Amino acid sequence: MLSKNQIKSIQSLHQKKFRQQQGAFLVEGAKSVQEVLQSDFDVELVVATEAYYKENGSLTDRQRTPVEIASAAELTRIGTLESNNAALAVVRTKENRPLVAEAGEIALILDDIRDPGNLGTILRIADWYGVRKILCSETTADVYNPKVISASKGSFTRVNWWYGDLTQFLNQQVSAEAGKPVHPLYGAFLNGADVHKMPFGSGGYLVMGNESNGISAAVEQYVTQRVTIPRYGGAESLNVGIATAVLLDNWRRQAPH
Amino acid sequence: MLSKNQIKSIQSLHQKKFRQQQGAFLVEGAKSVQEVLQSDFDVELVVATEAYYKENGSLTDRQRTPVEIASAAELTRIGTLESNNAALAVVRTKENRPLVAEAGEIALILDDIRDPGNLGTILRIADWYGVRKILCSETTADVYNPKVISASKGSFTRVNWWYGDLTQFLNQQVSAEAGKPVHPLYGAFLNGADVHKMPFGSGGYLVMGNESNGISAAVEQYVTQRVTIPRYGGAESLNVGIATAVLLDNWRRQAPH
Repeated sequence: MLSKNQIKSIQSLHQKKFRQQQGAFLVEGAKSVQEVLQSDFDVELVVATEAYYKENGSLTDRQRTPVEIASAAELTRIGTLESNNAALAVVRTKENRPLVAEAGEIALILDDIRDPGNLGTILRIADWYGVRKILCSETTADVYNPKVISASKGSFTRVNWWYGDLTQFLNQQVSAEAGKPVHPLYGAFLNGADVHKMPFGSGGYLVMGNESNGISAAVEQYVTQRVTIPRYGGAESLNVGIATAVLLDNWRRQAPH
Repeated sequence: MLSKNQIKSIQSLHQKKFRQQQGAFLVEGAKSVQEVLQSDFDVELVVATEAYYKENGSLTDRQRTPVEIASAAELTRIGTLESNNAALAVVRTKENRPLVAEAGEIALILDDIRDPGNLGTILRIADWYGVRKILCSETTADVYNPKVISASKGSFTRVNWWYGDLTQFLNQQVSAEAGKPVHPLYGAFLNGADVHKMPFGSGGYLVMGNESNGISAAVEQYVTQRVTIPRYGGAESLNVGIATAVLLDNWRRQAPH
């Protein structure tokens, strides 16, 4: 049975401040908990219903993860999902390690993506398209937000992220190569080259900007190629998650590996 | 000032049952109300803040739409948005008229898309890709649900929809052409032809299936070509809105008009 302190500690992880203080975050729902138990994340605690534990208990043996049994009502009360009749895990956050795209590798740069749902969707899309590195501005939504983890549908276990000062990172990359951008930096704009017609390099970065304002001026100066999804109808724009998927699809068609 | 009856009537439109009874639905937020006032929809009433009315009042002159002034707090209380400091419109629903893809036209078939957010996103995507006809199974989310209208970001004014029995529709199409499918019917599956490599016809239907179960067996039998977005990483699937965008992008690259 969960102690009062455990409940309090789990509920505090709904908030970023306490996730940072405790160095832990929540993973909720049947599938996501399965995935995190099979990943390289360090799982501190699993709270599961009797039924879920019967079916998935063996997964907790690998790291000898402590398990507490709870009712679906309790799970729902301590978590953030509308309902949870399966499980919840308390997981250690990872160190914020720098990431760089290797030659021939596609990486994502997120410049101020604010909506947790969009960020989670982007993790899932990156995972589908084999993109393993996501560099986020400090203003981008917290990847450990339960909404992000939930929207990623387990993909948070297969992609890596770094949060930091994007212009500083980009500036370092440029200096390292004596003034030349290390990789092509494709930026999503409404007035760039038509991605149905332009050639993509074998690797590099795709920069996606804020939901309302697009890519910031500070990051824009490092963009080597503005790219645009051609429009055939009346909508003014596409959601940033949708645009990320279409752009990566166009890139992968030319650079499958 | 809004009467008690007006408030009651507006609030009842949160529910499908009353939308059907009254033949009306809600459009909420600054941009969506602007768009609906400029569309061919019949707007019964606009409730707006003083500030919104000052800037957009001229739009209500065209059809001599009645306007009531309300505070942002009142607007938020009668509507479904978390906050609304602009306007809300009560709009007549349209007749449920049959739709058929003409030669060389791309149309969408939605087989049991349940999530209103997904449906709204699909309207926006269809609009971006110049798809003007969407045929929906009766089990698909109600297009007049405020969440759908809101997620479509105004695109509901530029696309048309029909709700009905999909198998009956498809069967009629087949019979009309003496046993031959009238158009290619592309269906999104996880084991179809790679859309990066296959040829698309100039027009036809794209069928998208339910979020969990995909295309139903009854509709599947009419699919002439199973199509798949190639996967390069670990995610098991893509969200149905994302998949719709990527598939239409691949089709439009070959059939731009």
